[in-house]
Formats: sequence, C-alpha cells, structure tokens
Amino acid sequence: MADKLSTAPPRGMRDILPPETELRDAATQQILTVYRGYGFRRIETPALESLRLLGSSDGGENEKLIYKVLKRGEDLDAALRTGSELADLGLRFDLTVPLARYYAENHAQLPDPLKAIQIGPVWRAERPQKGRYRQFTQCDIDVLGMASGLVEVELILATSEALTCLGLTDLTVRVNDRRILGQIARHCGFDGRAQAGFFITFDKLDKIGAEGVLAELRGAGGDPGAVERFERLLPALQKRELSLDELRASLGGGEGGEAFESLAWIIRTAQGEMPASARVQFDPTLVRGMGYYTGTIFEMAASAFPSSIAGGGRYDRMIGTMLGREVPACGFSIGFERLIMILGERGDAVRPAATAAAGRIALLVEGGGDLAGALAAARGLRADGHQVSLELKRKNLGKQLEDFATHGYTGYATWEAQGLTVKPLTGGRGRR
Amino acid sequence: MADKLSTAPPRGMRDILPPETELRDAATQQILTVYRGYGFRRIETPALESLRLLGSSDGGENEKLIYKVLKRGEDLDAALRTGSELADLGLRFDLTVPLARYYAENHAQLPDPLKAIQIGPVWRAERPQKGRYRQFTQCDIDVLGMASGLVEVELILATSEALTCLGLTDLTVRVNDRRILGQIARHCGFDGRAQAGFFITFDKLDKIGAEGVLAELRGAGGDPGAVERFERLLPALQKRELSLDELRASLGGGEGGEAFESLAWIIRTAQGEMPASARVQFDPTLVRGMGYYTGTIFEMAASAFPSSIAGGGRYDRMIGTMLGREVPACGFSIGFERLIMILGERGDAVRPAATAAAGRIALLVEGGGDLAGALAAARGLRADGHQVSLELKRKNLGKQLEDFATHGYTGYATWEAQGLTVKPLTGGRGRR
Repeated sequence: MADKLSTAPPRGMRDILPPETELRDAATQQILTVYRGYGFRRIETPALESLRLLGSSDGGENEKLIYKVLKRGEDLDAALRTGSELADLGLRFDLTVPLARYYAENHAQLPDPLKAIQIGPVWRAERPQKGRYRQFTQCDIDVLGMASGLVEVELILATSEALTCLGLTDLTVRVNDRRILGQIARHCGFDGRAQAGFFITFDKLDKIGAEGVLAELRGAGGDPGAVERFERLLPALQKRELSLDELRASLGGGEGGEAFESLAWIIRTAQGEMPASARVQFDPTLVRGMGYYTGTIFEMAASAFPSSIAGGGRYDRMIGTMLGREVPACGFSIGFERLIMILGERGDAVRPAATAAAGRIALLVEGGGDLAGALAAARGLRADGHQVSLELKRKNLGKQLEDFATHGYTGYATWEAQGLTVKPLTGGRGRR
Repeated sequence: MADKLSTAPPRGMRDILPPETELRDAATQQILTVYRGYGFRRIETPALESLRLLGSSDGGENEKLIYKVLKRGEDLDAALRTGSELADLGLRFDLTVPLARYYAENHAQLPDPLKAIQIGPVWRAERPQKGRYRQFTQCDIDVLGMASGLVEVELILATSEALTCLGLTDLTVRVNDRRILGQIARHCGFDGRAQAGFFITFDKLDKIGAEGVLAELRGAGGDPGAVERFERLLPALQKRELSLDELRASLGGGEGGEAFESLAWIIRTAQGEMPASARVQFDPTLVRGMGYYTGTIFEMAASAFPSSIAGGGRYDRMIGTMLGREVPACGFSIGFERLIMILGERGDAVRPAATAAAGRIALLVEGGGDLAGALAAARGLRADGHQVSLELKRKNLGKQLEDFATHGYTGYATWEAQGLTVKPLTGGRGRR
C-alpha cells in the first residue's frame, strides 16, 4: 500500500482536461490575432535560466520562490564536497526577466523597437491555494527600445481589444506613474530609504484600508511629520476621479511636471481609441509590487470581476544592467489563469477552435474486417469540415451514444454496405 | 570582467527569434487542424513530475538525463543532514510517461477511448551537439483504451496527412511488431535475459552494419549457436520488401501467427488510405529503443531527409503499472525540432499565420502630439486584415525603411493631415 505510485500531479500543479485545453487554445488564438494586428510578434525563451540572472532582477518576493535545478555529475560532487551552491539553473518565475536577457543577447538580429508577444508557463513555489498554482501561464506583450508614451497607448489599446474580443465588458484601466508616487513620497517627507517601505505599505491600501496603512506607517518608526502630512493628503488620493492637475496642485506644483504631462497625454490619447465600454482612469493609489518599474504602471479589470486581470508598466533600467546601455522597455501582462477561470465560469462566449468545425462526429465501425469504405467516408466528412473519430461499436450502444454526447460529439454515424448516415446526438451530462 | 552577467541562454538551450517562432506556430496550427479532424483533442500536463514516477517508466537511457529539482526549506535541510535524496521532482523527458500518469489519474472524466494530442517541451541533459537541444518540443498523438489495429491505422494516417499538409512528400512509414522481433530472437535462440541485449545490438544495424552487429553479438559471450542462426537469417531480414509471409515461413511458421496477421491487416488497411506519394512498409530490422513497447512499432521518414521525422508504437503495459489494470495504448510522436529544421531549410512552403494577413505595415508617426487620426487609420487598416505597427519616424528614413523590409514588413505609411497612403516595401536582407 505504501508503495503504490501516486498518479496525482505534483503538489500545486494540475492536469488540464480536453474542454479546458480547448478553451485555453481558443483564447490564446484570439489574443494572438489581436496582438499580431498591432504588429507584435511572438518569441520564445527556455524555461530554465541561470540562477545568477534570476537573482539579479529586482523581482521582489518572486526570487524566493524559484524552483532550483540540481547540478549534475562532477559539478554536484564538487558542490557537496565544498559546501558550495547545489544548483546553478532555475525555472523562470516570470517572462519579463527572460525577455530582458533575450533582448540583451539577440538585439542585433531583432527589430528595433522589438514588439514581443510571450505566452508560456512560469513556476513559483508558492503555498498552494484556491486558484493559485505553482505552474501557471502568463501572456505578455512588451515594447523594447522605445521611450515614447505611444508605447503605453498601444499596450493599453491592444490589451483592451484582446479582452473585449473575448467578451469582457466594462473594462477599466487604472494608470499611475512611479515618478508621481515618488513625488507624493517626497512631498510628505519619505525619502531615500524610507521611500521603498512607504510604497510597500501604501500598496496594501486595498487590503487594509486607510487606517491600516497609517497605523503601519506609524509603527515603522519613521518621521511622524511625514505620516501626518500623508494623512492629510490621503483623502484626496482616495477621491474618485482625482485629476492629475488637482494632485499636482496638492503637491505644490513645481518640480517633476514631465511625469504629469506624459501621463495626461497617455490617458487622453488611449481614451480616445478605447472600445466603447472601456475607460482609462488615473489612480494615484496604484503602486504594484515589482521593484523594477521606473515610470507608468497600469492594471486592468472588468466590472463583473473585482481583482485585476492584467497589469504592467515601464521598466527602463532592467535591460541596462544586462546590456551595459539603457534600453527603454514597457509591458502589459494578462493573468492567463484568471482569464480562463472567468471565461470558463461565463460559459460559451469563446468558441473553441476544436468545436468551430462543422461538427464532431463519432463514426462507429466493427473491429478488423475491411475498413476501406468507412475510412473513405471519414475522409469525405473531414473534407466537409467535420471532425471525425472512428470508434469501435460496443454492445451497449445506448450507453456509448450517451458517452459521446457527454464528451461533446454532435453526431454519430454507422457504416454499412449501403453507405453512411449522420444522426444528431443530444443530451449528455454537459461536460465537453 | 569575471562578474559580467552572461546573457546567453543556458548551455544546450536556445532563444527563438520571431521568424522561427512564426514558422513553429504555423506548423503547430496545421498539425492541430489535421489531428482534430481525426477526433484527437489536446491535453496538458505539468512540466514537473515526481522522480519516483519518472524513474519507474522503463524509459531507457532517458531516465539518466533527467533535470532534478532541488527540495526546498526543511525538506532540503533534512535531506542534507541525513544524506537522503536532494530532489523529489524532475522535468519530464518525454510526453508518454506523463500521459500514462494523466490517464491513470483522470480516466473517469475522460472519453473512452482517449484520443490525445500533446504538444510541448521536454528536457534532457544530453551532451549538446548540432541540432540536438536540452529543451525541445515533442508533438504526440496517442490513443488510450483501444486494443484494435484500427488505432495504428489512424495514427499512421493522421501523422502522414499532417506531414503531407506541411509539404513533405514521398513519405515512408516503416512498421514492425515487438512480438515478431521476439519470435526472431527465440527462433535464433536468444531468450530470457539474452533477448534484451539482442534487441539493443540489433537496433544498431543502421549505424554499424551487419558485420558490426554480428561482431558485437559474438563479443557479448552468449550462445554461439544463436549468433550463427541469426547470421543465416540476417540476409533475409535485410532484403528490401521482405513480406510478412516470407518471414513467417523462414521462422518455421507455427506459433505467434496473431502478430503477423494483425500487422498485415494494419499495413493493408493504412496503405489503402495513404496520400498518393506515401507508403507503408514492413521492416523486420526496425527495433526502436524504448523498453516499454509491446506490439506494433513504426517510424516515418521523407525521401529527401534520411533520418526519421516521427516514431512511435504500442505500449499496452505502461498504464497498468500505475492504474492497477491494463489499458491498451499506442502513440505516434513527431520530432518537432527536426520537422522545423526541414521546413526552415525548405523555405516558404508553410505560410506563417503572422504573414497570412493582408500585409504587415509600419505606420510612421511623430512622437507626442495628437495621434487620434493615426490611431483611427491604424484601426481601419486592421479591420481590412492588415497587421499595423505604429513606429516613430526617424531622421534617417532610408535606413529605417530598409530595416522594416529586413524584418518582413510589406509596406509603410505616413500619417499627415490629408490622410494616409500605404506604399510597398521591397528588398531588405531577407531575414523575416
């Protein structure tokens, strides 16, 4: 008993059944079509990267969750003997750090700017919980090599259009700029080392509320005057539809107008082209966790689903650490697992390519014997756009037909000397 | 200098540039369309599996090449303290072992039989060499739960059709049966333990020739009479177009007629439906490396390319070791990296979806300013099926246009007050 081999997937990971795989494939194709329409092109990097690279990325908490791959052969023996590192490779925890490496390595052969699509799995050894997996798919677009706000506009438009095409409505894109957050921090008096801690606490506003944030800032033992100035500013920051001009006035105008002007231009330009039900909105309370952001940051949500479906921002300094010269960069990432959960709950809005065919037909045959006629009939049905599975006829035909319906077949046919008739299937227990 | 972070991908792994990614995507979609036409459905399993599972699979040499993932936290501390295993998970080395686990775990929710498509990366820590990578993609179809030769026929037809649709011609499918190989071994006198060694040596016939095989068998120190009987049989086995009946007669007829009859039926039935330029051929020298095969085995090659592009066979006992009851299983796997290499060398036969659009157009704009008109023009071009990338106009327009052509743009446009004209782009250095 103790020795029976478990057939469950590894803890926190999952097997994907055919109906969900088809939904994922259909959503992926839809997203790719929209992104390609905007001139983005898909690229691929390996799942494994050197731990030195993964550890150098300012990727925050994620670096602690890396799956590390054991060294092999003599390298492992030496590491065990000398007590040095047992691993030198790790599974990627996001697609942004590998993209920066990819660009630094291959830029001479790539378009400039590079407009990249990446869709692929990433791994994080997180505590498993509902809806959060240790292997999950990310779906990113990034523009590398272009400093203009045009990049933010295109990222916002392309991502909104992709989600709109998948049937999501009432999209809101909240935008902010790390430089504006920096001005808020400096205005209050959190500067230098205190600023990073201020951001981490401010980022919890959604979860712990204004009182919670203020309490945590007070407890951190910094300058009480800074917390007091922040407390006076906070109601304005939380005001719905606070304008950039109002915030700038609250901060005393003056320095750093560029961030305000660029963000205003991005919002105005993107809003003008957004799908009818979508909007772009300034949110000075948006912080986002990653340490590598340098400018604009954004998140997108659909009205029916509270937490965000996509997020991203500008990270103009990451590639510089690898390439030796700075390359402006900005990306928007769709949380693919969350998107699929939403599409799955909603039902039939996305039509999987697998059922886009004229129909899925089970063609029943006897085993052995001469199958030439049945094979030719199947070929003819395929030429008409049907998906045709040859299946051995069972004694209990009623049960067999019920199973076909359960698994999404739309019709069945039997092959006899006189030819073939396709009959519809209905019912089943609704699984596809 | 020593501290500069390398931006190369890990040893033996590779970055994939946009043109190859587009070729891979186009080939994948073409294969999926054909396989879905035959009623196969895509599934996914995690990249990581337990090492216990990976090590129990009779996967031959591949098991030695597993990338192992380091335990974490207290588990790792305990392992280091007690000298027990440092790893409990590994990256999959093929898609067959994970499929067997998947079926054993999920069979109650799956169609019976399951006709599965799997396309995804696998990892093997092989010595890097030209054309062989440590992460590479496999593309498999398998039928689980069906013992009939109909399965082999459909696998052969679907795989031939997929490769034919990708423009490969003169396909030959060589087929054999492990039970027939067993009869050859027993006829000569290699039985019990000697049989596995005989297969391993016989499998080298292509590489070391008849003399090499005989020398290795003699050197192995087995029964000299068995080697002598094999030497007498070998010319017949190497004869082009040896028939199943002839071989059966050479082996003295008698026992094990079932394997001969089933293979004859499979060849006859598949041949009748094969694309015009393709053929199915009995090859008693086909062995294949994996220990888990139990019946039919096959490999497919195209006349212009000597080594095989796809291979597979029946493995009726693998799932039984996981599920506790036997489930017949048979699969055919396309070597995707090899296929892409062939398609890439051949040039334009597969039209990537990314260029299937009406055209790829660079729309040149000035940064900042009012982009509403340009964005609306881009939207209009997309609605007509174009892929449109907004790009900032540079001082050296000639160089910029040349770069666009190099990277596969078919036209460019500039936006001015009076509207938009698309002009064709030609030339470039041929990279796409």
